[in-house]
Amino acid sequence: MTTTDDAAFAVDKSGLVRRLRLFLPERCLLAEEEDLRPYECDGLTAYRELPLVVCLPETEAQVIDILRTCHQLAVPVVARGAGTGLSGGAMPHAQGVVLSLARFNKILRVDPLARLAVVQPGVRNLAVSEAAAPHGLYYAPDPSSQIACTLGGNVAENSGGVHCLKYGLTVHNVLRIRVVSIEGEVFEIGSEGPDAPGYDLLALLIGSEGMLGVVTEVTVKLVPKPELAQVVMASFNDVAKAGDAVAAIIAAGIIPAGLEMMDKPATAAVEPFVKAGYDLEAEAILLCEADGTPEEVADEIARVTAVLTQAGAGNIKVSGSEAERLRFWAGRKAAFPAVGRITPDYYCMDGTIPRKRLAEMLSAIVAMEKKYGLRCANVFHAGDGNLHPLIMYDTAQPGSWERAEAFGAEILELSVALGGSITGEHGVGVEKINQMCVQYTTPELDAFRRIKSAFDETGLLNPGKAVPSLHRCAEYGRMHVHHGDLKFPELERF
Amino acid sequence: MTTTDDAAFAVDKSGLVRRLRLFLPERCLLAEEEDLRPYECDGLTAYRELPLVVCLPETEAQVIDILRTCHQLAVPVVARGAGTGLSGGAMPHAQGVVLSLARFNKILRVDPLARLAVVQPGVRNLAVSEAAAPHGLYYAPDPSSQIACTLGGNVAENSGGVHCLKYGLTVHNVLRIRVVSIEGEVFEIGSEGPDAPGYDLLALLIGSEGMLGVVTEVTVKLVPKPELAQVVMASFNDVAKAGDAVAAIIAAGIIPAGLEMMDKPATAAVEPFVKAGYDLEAEAILLCEADGTPEEVADEIARVTAVLTQAGAGNIKVSGSEAERLRFWAGRKAAFPAVGRITPDYYCMDGTIPRKRLAEMLSAIVAMEKKYGLRCANVFHAGDGNLHPLIMYDTAQPGSWERAEAFGAEILELSVALGGSITGEHGVGVEKINQMCVQYTTPELDAFRRIKSAFDETGLLNPGKAVPSLHRCAEYGRMHVHHGDLKFPELERF
Repeated sequence: MTTTDDAAFAVDKSGLVRRLRLFLPERCLLAEEEDLRPYECDGLTAYRELPLVVCLPETEAQVIDILRTCHQLAVPVVARGAGTGLSGGAMPHAQGVVLSLARFNKILRVDPLARLAVVQPGVRNLAVSEAAAPHGLYYAPDPSSQIACTLGGNVAENSGGVHCLKYGLTVHNVLRIRVVSIEGEVFEIGSEGPDAPGYDLLALLIGSEGMLGVVTEVTVKLVPKPELAQVVMASFNDVAKAGDAVAAIIAAGIIPAGLEMMDKPATAAVEPFVKAGYDLEAEAILLCEADGTPEEVADEIARVTAVLTQAGAGNIKVSGSEAERLRFWAGRKAAFPAVGRITPDYYCMDGTIPRKRLAEMLSAIVAMEKKYGLRCANVFHAGDGNLHPLIMYDTAQPGSWERAEAFGAEILELSVALGGSITGEHGVGVEKINQMCVQYTTPELDAFRRIKSAFDETGLLNPGKAVPSLHRCAEYGRMHVHHGDLKFPELERF
Repeated sequence: MTTTDDAAFAVDKSGLVRRLRLFLPERCLLAEEEDLRPYECDGLTAYRELPLVVCLPETEAQVIDILRTCHQLAVPVVARGAGTGLSGGAMPHAQGVVLSLARFNKILRVDPLARLAVVQPGVRNLAVSEAAAPHGLYYAPDPSSQIACTLGGNVAENSGGVHCLKYGLTVHNVLRIRVVSIEGEVFEIGSEGPDAPGYDLLALLIGSEGMLGVVTEVTVKLVPKPELAQVVMASFNDVAKAGDAVAAIIAAGIIPAGLEMMDKPATAAVEPFVKAGYDLEAEAILLCEADGTPEEVADEIARVTAVLTQAGAGNIKVSGSEAERLRFWAGRKAAFPAVGRITPDYYCMDGTIPRKRLAEMLSAIVAMEKKYGLRCANVFHAGDGNLHPLIMYDTAQPGSWERAEAFGAEILELSVALGGSITGEHGVGVEKINQMCVQYTTPELDAFRRIKSAFDETGLLNPGKAVPSLHRCAEYGRMHVHHGDLKFPELERF
């Protein structure tokens, strides 16, 4: 069984439960349908599946025993953090176990001198910064879901956030992880130093979407809280101008602490909800943060303002207080729920494109809105070229989800055609697995499959996610577009 | 043949040459002993081996044909850049081909807007910065060998340099690579965006020491040249104080563009050679660079000076001109050749340790100097905790090299015992392969071996380097020390 094809698994539930009960106390094992229901999906609610059982281990020894048991009985295992993921990476397997790390919620150590924290994978992202705050330190990656999402999930998805332009993704902020293999072997990878000898397994494991091992401990870098941070909010009467302004800021040698863009539909959804003070007349707004010493911030704000003015910004407003700065960001961070208030359902995409192609992508999305008869609000980590179009649909309407899904697939495939990629920070999961056939060539996908086999020969860890089978790519049957060579006849109009 | 044991290869040289001549012009194939001699070692001259042949391909098609041929005939392949590596990563295999990328020396594209350059692997590190200079940009990683070393070699070893504390190692500055597998398959990994979907093969390949594939093209990030850079030179009458000053600078939230330390034997060797202006009375000097806008630099220099004074620095001197700044660095960058002038041979080590253990390591090295009857000059990338002790020996003296080798091994094993690692930036190669058995547990080494098989099942790419066989670790027979747990009886005196 070296396939990830679902048909390959046929598990005897009662036998599995009996085996798990040998070492798991009752509170750590859910097997009744009403208990399993809350686990049927993650943040990508369009895809749902009930698992056979949910395990909630409390010790690493239990994690090892669960994985050994599943390995012996050939049972799929889906690890789960807080379930806030947006690509279905934690969607259960119908023949499998959900291994929730929710009870691994201890901060084991904060070492302010070495600037690191050792935490269990079920610790919430924001809790790390809260624990580090008394030392003037914080954990930099800040996904919008940071109140709820966990470090284990962040490691699985290589999560970013609005500050990752300057401070990096999860992979740049994790020093070491402790991992249990599907065979129940424990290994630690990474080091507290700048590099570790041997292959870079740390980077390989981070972002591997639960396909290579289960993380039981994470050592993260802490960084000093900047003395000051200020945000510039700039309005543009044209989205293309806003896109060009982003490129101009980066071209001026400025690396802002955050550089975000929202279009008019997005600000219109947010403003009544958050009252962030956004310019509702603007076709697009940019939020650009500077942080550092007061002198550095003043200097950077002056340079950013000059570039924005030159790029044709209308209103430019600099946050006058920490409260105002947080309000500017609150609007951005609440964009998803705000859009959720004005539409029954929305579908959040996560493509990346070269910054200079932002304007092109936006015009294409306008054309797609007409083609699919659906509205789309756009929120971007603009500095990274990472797009989060929010496609609004209504599951109650027949065909609405199918159109949203096709709309999303077209955005992703255009991202690849423009020289970008199908995901910036949300992972591939179950959602973008077909587009992996578009993003990569056969030898490249084959390299992924060989890596998978090297860690999980029988394909039990999160089957059906992230890395498509040969068979799936053949079925998907789309032409391959690689590094910006446009080969989709249907996309050539853009 | 899934072993890296040398005995496993038995190659018919004339048959191999005949096959290679089918597609390689005469100028691209060396097979006579006098032509092979220059390739017998890299920068680690203590280890030498003549290869069967050296191939100097000029096109990617030739690289593919060479690899396919070697795969068919079961011939080991050692890829080689400029041969400046310090761990023997490019040391030939007696039964193998050296694949030199020296003729892949073109800069294919410099894109100042996207801030990147696409180069062939034989391009010299410094040549990238020279090509980017007209746009006010440069390539950040700057190994001391940057005049000669190539991007391909930098990728293989994940090279650093004096500025990597702030600007990162090669892995942080490479966006995409094009790789040929041992089977002759071409794949591109990475993207111009912040992240790429699927496993992070880019990070896996960078630093893989030619064991997983042969790189034929590298896309690197370019960064803006800072408006100004200045170096503070500080003298200390005690190496322990200098070590603590390093920790204090980092603890103050300053990330200098470079933070280097040299002890008295190192400055004594350098000063007559370079006339850098170092304080020869000091037991240790620190060099700390600030870069950015003039305001940022002035601010950082003031903060660094305050911390250094507090930490007990004697003389503190700030570079007054660009010429003086370059002279300060010239001394540091020439430290290796300068030591080479005062001893027949030297052996450069590359351990890393937690910054706070610098003073401990230095006392231990003093004790080892007595134990082995050899002198040692110490040059450190202090900000990273990356040590480069230069052990002086004389191959003409019987037993001198053996003592140097044992001295080096003891430094590396103590690095691990102090919570560090056996290599910071020079790679494992042939030099530190035994210490890999000390650094890692059996399941960890096993994960490395499975990665190796996933890319190179028959073990033809650079056999005998970086990842030790099970057999080798059994032979080496030392106790395992992991993440600072001290288990070497002979080290317990430190």
